[in-house]
Amino acid sequence: MDEMNKLNGMIVAMAKHIVNMTTAAGSGHPSSALSLVHIVAALMGKQMRWDPKDPWNPVADRLVLSEGHSVPVVYAAMAELGAVVGKKKESAEVVTAQSLLELREIGSPLDGHPNPRVGVAFFDSATGSLGQGLSTGAGLGLAARLDKSPRRVFVLVGDGESREGQVWEACDFVIDHKLNNVTVIFNCNGQGQSDYVSVQQNAASLAKKLRAFGFKVLRIKGHDLESILSALEEAAVSEVPVAIVAKTVKGWGVRELKKHTYHGKPLTQKQLGKALKNIEREAQKLGVSGEAAEQMVPPMPAGGGIGEGSRGSGRRLGDPDFGALLAGDKYLSKFENGLMSTRRAYGLALRELGKMDERIVALDGDVKNSTFTEYFAKEFPERYFEARIAEQNMVSAAVGLAAAGKIPFVSSFAKFLSRAFDQIEMAVISGHGVKLVGSHAGITLGPDGPSQMAVTDVAFFRSFPADPEGDGEPAMAFFFPSDGVGAYKCTQLMVDHPGMCYLRTLRSDLPLLYSTDTEFELGGAKTLAVGADLTIMASGYMAHLGKKVVAALAQEGIKAGLMDCYSFPLRAQTVIEATGTGSGRLLCVEDNYTGGLGSAVAEIAAGLDNCRVDCMYVGRFPKSGKSGDEVLDYVGLGTQQVIAKVRQIAGR
Amino acid sequence: MDEMNKLNGMIVAMAKHIVNMTTAAGSGHPSSALSLVHIVAALMGKQMRWDPKDPWNPVADRLVLSEGHSVPVVYAAMAELGAVVGKKKESAEVVTAQSLLELREIGSPLDGHPNPRVGVAFFDSATGSLGQGLSTGAGLGLAARLDKSPRRVFVLVGDGESREGQVWEACDFVIDHKLNNVTVIFNCNGQGQSDYVSVQQNAASLAKKLRAFGFKVLRIKGHDLESILSALEEAAVSEVPVAIVAKTVKGWGVRELKKHTYHGKPLTQKQLGKALKNIEREAQKLGVSGEAAEQMVPPMPAGGGIGEGSRGSGRRLGDPDFGALLAGDKYLSKFENGLMSTRRAYGLALRELGKMDERIVALDGDVKNSTFTEYFAKEFPERYFEARIAEQNMVSAAVGLAAAGKIPFVSSFAKFLSRAFDQIEMAVISGHGVKLVGSHAGITLGPDGPSQMAVTDVAFFRSFPADPEGDGEPAMAFFFPSDGVGAYKCTQLMVDHPGMCYLRTLRSDLPLLYSTDTEFELGGAKTLAVGADLTIMASGYMAHLGKKVVAALAQEGIKAGLMDCYSFPLRAQTVIEATGTGSGRLLCVEDNYTGGLGSAVAEIAAGLDNCRVDCMYVGRFPKSGKSGDEVLDYVGLGTQQVIAKVRQIAGR
Repeated sequence: MDEMNKLNGMIVAMAKHIVNMTTAAGSGHPSSALSLVHIVAALMGKQMRWDPKDPWNPVADRLVLSEGHSVPVVYAAMAELGAVVGKKKESAEVVTAQSLLELREIGSPLDGHPNPRVGVAFFDSATGSLGQGLSTGAGLGLAARLDKSPRRVFVLVGDGESREGQVWEACDFVIDHKLNNVTVIFNCNGQGQSDYVSVQQNAASLAKKLRAFGFKVLRIKGHDLESILSALEEAAVSEVPVAIVAKTVKGWGVRELKKHTYHGKPLTQKQLGKALKNIEREAQKLGVSGEAAEQMVPPMPAGGGIGEGSRGSGRRLGDPDFGALLAGDKYLSKFENGLMSTRRAYGLALRELGKMDERIVALDGDVKNSTFTEYFAKEFPERYFEARIAEQNMVSAAVGLAAAGKIPFVSSFAKFLSRAFDQIEMAVISGHGVKLVGSHAGITLGPDGPSQMAVTDVAFFRSFPADPEGDGEPAMAFFFPSDGVGAYKCTQLMVDHPGMCYLRTLRSDLPLLYSTDTEFELGGAKTLAVGADLTIMASGYMAHLGKKVVAALAQEGIKAGLMDCYSFPLRAQTVIEATGTGSGRLLCVEDNYTGGLGSAVAEIAAGLDNCRVDCMYVGRFPKSGKSGDEVLDYVGLGTQQVIAKVRQIAGR
Repeated sequence: MDEMNKLNGMIVAMAKHIVNMTTAAGSGHPSSALSLVHIVAALMGKQMRWDPKDPWNPVADRLVLSEGHSVPVVYAAMAELGAVVGKKKESAEVVTAQSLLELREIGSPLDGHPNPRVGVAFFDSATGSLGQGLSTGAGLGLAARLDKSPRRVFVLVGDGESREGQVWEACDFVIDHKLNNVTVIFNCNGQGQSDYVSVQQNAASLAKKLRAFGFKVLRIKGHDLESILSALEEAAVSEVPVAIVAKTVKGWGVRELKKHTYHGKPLTQKQLGKALKNIEREAQKLGVSGEAAEQMVPPMPAGGGIGEGSRGSGRRLGDPDFGALLAGDKYLSKFENGLMSTRRAYGLALRELGKMDERIVALDGDVKNSTFTEYFAKEFPERYFEARIAEQNMVSAAVGLAAAGKIPFVSSFAKFLSRAFDQIEMAVISGHGVKLVGSHAGITLGPDGPSQMAVTDVAFFRSFPADPEGDGEPAMAFFFPSDGVGAYKCTQLMVDHPGMCYLRTLRSDLPLLYSTDTEFELGGAKTLAVGADLTIMASGYMAHLGKKVVAALAQEGIKAGLMDCYSFPLRAQTVIEATGTGSGRLLCVEDNYTGGLGSAVAEIAAGLDNCRVDCMYVGRFPKSGKSGDEVLDYVGLGTQQVIAKVRQIAGR
C-alpha cells in the first residue's frame, strides 16, 4: 500500500496548493478543483503514462480538462510531480509550489483556464467555454488509432457542464467511431455556479443517459482512490468505450468551500489558515503525515507515438488538369462546357493532397456530397470521419486531430459552420491548424433560402488578429477564391499555412477566370480589369458579376476596374493599387452582411489620402428565389443595381 | 370512418402536391416531405386546434417544423385545408394547388424552408438550420402555460437532425420545466443527406435516449393513421411530456424517391407522371377515390389565448435612484463609494421593468449571479426560466417566447452567447424581439483568461442589416453603455425597440459618467470631451480609459476629444461631428477584435472628405492577468499605449 500512501500524500498536498494558489490569485475556482483531487491524482500520479518532464512526448497519454475552471487541480498535480511548462522544450521550467502562487498573473503560463498557447503543453486545447473537451478527446483518440499509438485519452467533464448539447454530440461520435481509447469521467459534485445542478444532470440521470448512448457506465465514489483506480483499469481493457460517473464533493476537504455560494470564489487570506487545518484533518484520516509527500513517478509511455504512422511527402499540388482529374466523373461534361464550381475544385484538390500527405484527414457533417469532401472520402475512407449533423463536435474533434499532428479539413455548408463559431474561436486560442471549408457561401445558392445562406461568416472570420508571437502570421488565413483554379490552389495554401484557415466555396458552376498556371497567395488579390473612373473590389460570385458590370459600363464609356480580393487579411498595398488606377474611388461589392470586404477596405482607406470607398452588401434579409441572380436583385446587389451605383459614383 | 377516409384523401392529395411543387420549383426535398404526409395530415387535419383562415389566432395550437427542408408537406396540407398566408390578416391569401407551384420563387411566400418573415404566419420561427425547433417549441409551451392558455405545441424533428446537441439541450429543458403541453415527434425515415443515419439515431436508439432523458416514449408506425392519432391522443392527456418516435419511409408513395440518392432532389418533369401513378396506386390501397378530396375542417380552438395573461402597463422607467434601488443590498456601500457596474445596472433595470410589464420574462444559463438577472429572478420566479449551461437552447426557447408575445431577456457571459450565434441569426430571420444581454464583455474581466472573454461579438452583432421592410429599423439594436446610467436606460430602450437587441455589459465596477437624468437613444453617441487635435471614439471600459488619456494629454497641450459611441448602428452624423472637432483625425479604441467600432467609423469616414481614421483593437490573443488594465497593456491597449498613439497622430 506504499503507492496508495504516496497518492494520498499527493492528494493532501494538491488540496493545499489549490487553496493557496487561488487565495494568492484572488480569484479562481478552488471548490471545483477540490472535487477532482482524487481523480486527478489517480490519473496523473498513476494511471496516465506520461513524462512530466516532457509534455510533448508523442506517445504519452493525454488529459483533456473539459471543465476548464477546475484547472488549479492539474497545476497542483504538476507541482507535485515536477512537471514542466514552457513554450519550448529548451526553455521549459518546472512548476513549483512557489510558481503556483503566480496563478493567473500576466507573466505566468498558469492561466485561469487551460491555455496551451501560453505554455502549458500538458494540455492540447484551450478549454473553459464548456462542453467541448470530449469532442477534442475524441479527435485525439482518432489520431492515436490512425497512428497505431497505444496512447490513451482521458476527459474530465463537469455535471453542470454536461447540459451542453455538444457533450452528447461527442458521445454519439465516440460510440460511432468505437473509440475505446477515450475514457470520459463525469465529475458529479452536484453544484453549478448559481444553483445546484438539475436532476437532469445528477449522477443517476447521467448514468442512464450514457448507457442509452451506448457507453459502458461505471459509477464510482470520486473520493475513493481504490474505486477510481479499479474503474480506470476496467476502462483500459474494455472493448466498449467507458464512461465513469463519479460522485464527488465540491470543496472536498474544506468546510467553507462546500457551501453552495462558493462557486468561483477563493478564500480570503484570513480564511486560509482554517482551510489548511481542515485539509490537515483529512490528512490525518488518510494516515498521511504532514511532511512533504514523496514524489510519485508516473509510468513511462511505451509503444509508438502519434505522428509516426503518417507523414507528409513534401510534394505540392501542380497546376490542375481538371479534365484528367474528372476522368470518369459525370461532371466532366460540365467542365468541358467551361464550368467548374469552387467547391468541386476544392474537393478534387483535397483528394490529390491526400495522396501526397498522409497527415491530411477530413471530417464532414453529412453533406460531403455537397461540399465535395466525398472525393477524399472515397479515396481515403480510413482518413475520413463522418461527423453527421453535429458541427460543434466536428470542429472540436478536429482540434484534437490537429493537436496530434494531423491536418484536418472540416467541411460543411458555410452557414452551418456558424453553429460552431465558439468552438472555432477556442480552436484559434488553442493554436492548432484546423482547416475549415464552408460551402454554399453567400446568397447565390438561391432557392433554399436564408436558413442555408452564410452571410455572417465573413465578418466573423475576418476579425481574428494577427498573432505577434507567430511571426505576425494571421490567426485565421481566409480564402474566398472566385474560380476553380483559385480554389484548387488555395487548398494547397491551406496545407502550407500551419495555422487556422477558412476557405469559402460557392455552390454555383462558374467559368474559370484564371489560367491553370496562375499563382495565388495568402492575403493576395488580383487585378481583373484596370480602371480609370473607379475600381470595383469583389470576390467569389461577385467577381463574376463585376466582370459583367465592367463590360456593360465600357459600352457607356465608363472605365471601371475590377480587383478580385480572394484572401484576407487584405493588404494595404492592394487598396493603394486599386485607388491609384481608380481615381481614388473604390466600390466594394459583397454578398454577405457588412463587416467583410467593405469594412476591410474602408479601414485601410481611412488611413489614406484621396480615397473614397462605397460599399454594397446584403442590406436586406434574403429569401428563396429560383436563381442566385434573382436573390441578388432582391437584396439590391443585382447587375443593374451595381451598374447604377457605378454610374452614380462616376457622376454619369 | 368517414373522417379517416377524408384524412386518407388528404394524404394522397398532399403527396401529389409535394411532387408537383418540387418538380415545378426544380429543387427541394420531396422525399423528406413524403415521409411526413401521414403525420402532418393527422396533425393539421385533425389533432391540432387551429383556424386555417387565421394563423394569427392566439389560442391556436402550433406546429414547429424543426426539419425545415420538409416544408412542402406543410404547404401541401395548407392547400388542402384552405389555409392562408400573408404578412397581414387583411392581405392574406389562400394557398392553392396553383400557388404551390410557385414554391421557392422570389415573389412567393412559400420559401424553401419555413420563413414567417416572408408571410407564412403558420410558423413561429424560421427553421432549416437543424436542431432548433424543439427549443422554440419549449418556449411556446412556456408562454402558453404562463398565460394559462390551453394551446398545445407540436414539434417535428428529423432522425438525422437529432444528432444536433441542441435537441438534447431542449429535451432536458422540456423535462426540467415539465412542459407536457409540448409533444415532440421524431421522424425516423432512416436516411440523411449523404448517407443512412447512424445507428445512434435509429428509432430504437432514439427511444432509449428519450426515455433516459425522462420522456414518456411512444413508438409508432409513421404511415399508420390510427397509430399516429392514438399516440397524439395519449400525448394530450399525459402528465409527463411525450416523445413520439415514428418509423417512416423516405419518399413514401413514390418508388423513385425512396432511393437513398434522392435526398434534396426533385423529380424531373419526365419522372413526374410515373410518380403520380405510384401515388394513385397508394390511393387505391387506401380506398380513396381519385376525385378531389373533401376538405377537412380542423377543430376550432377553445379557451384563453396567449398574451391574455400578461400585459404591458405602458409605464417606462424613470431616472435611476441607485441608492434606493440597492436598499438592503450588500452592494450599496460600493455604490456609495461611487462605483456601479453596467451589468448590475442592467439587472436592477430589468427588475423594475418587470414590475411595469408582465410580458417581460428572463432566461439565464446558470450565471444569473454574474449577469445580475438574479434581481429579476428573485422578484418574479414564475417569469424566470433557468436554462442551465445550454446557450443554444436558451436562445431558441426565447424565440418561442417572443413569438408568443413575451419580451424575453436572455443573459449569459457575452462569450457564451457566441455559442448560439447561429440560433441568434435564425432568430433575426424569424423576426421576433429577443433581447440578448452579454456580460463580462471584452477583455477587462482579466484573471479568467481568453476562454471567458468576448472579443468576436461586436463584429458579429454589428453586421446585421437594417430591414427596409421594417421602416429601416436595424435588425439588431446594439447597446454598449459605458456606465450604470447608460445601462439602466438602454435596458428600457430594449423594451421600447420591438426587434432583436443586444446589450453588452461589463464585469468592472466603474464610476458613473452621466447624471441620472441623461437621455440615451438607439444609435446615439455622446461627446465626453471636445477635442481640437483629434477625437477618440470608444465605448464601455475604453471610454473610461479614454478619459484618462484625454486628461493626461491635456497636460502636454494635446487637446483630444472623446466620443462615447454606446450604440450601433452608428450614425454618419456622429462621425461627421467627431471629425469636425478633431481636425479630421479620429482614433477608435476598442477591446475586441476588429470589425467593430473602428470598422463602423471607417466605413462612414471612407465616404467623407478630410477624415482619417486610426484603429486600436485587440491585436493579440489575450491571456489571464490580475487586472483588466494588465490585460489591456498585454494586448497593446493600455493607457500609455493609447497616449503614445495619440501623440504620434498629433505629430508630437
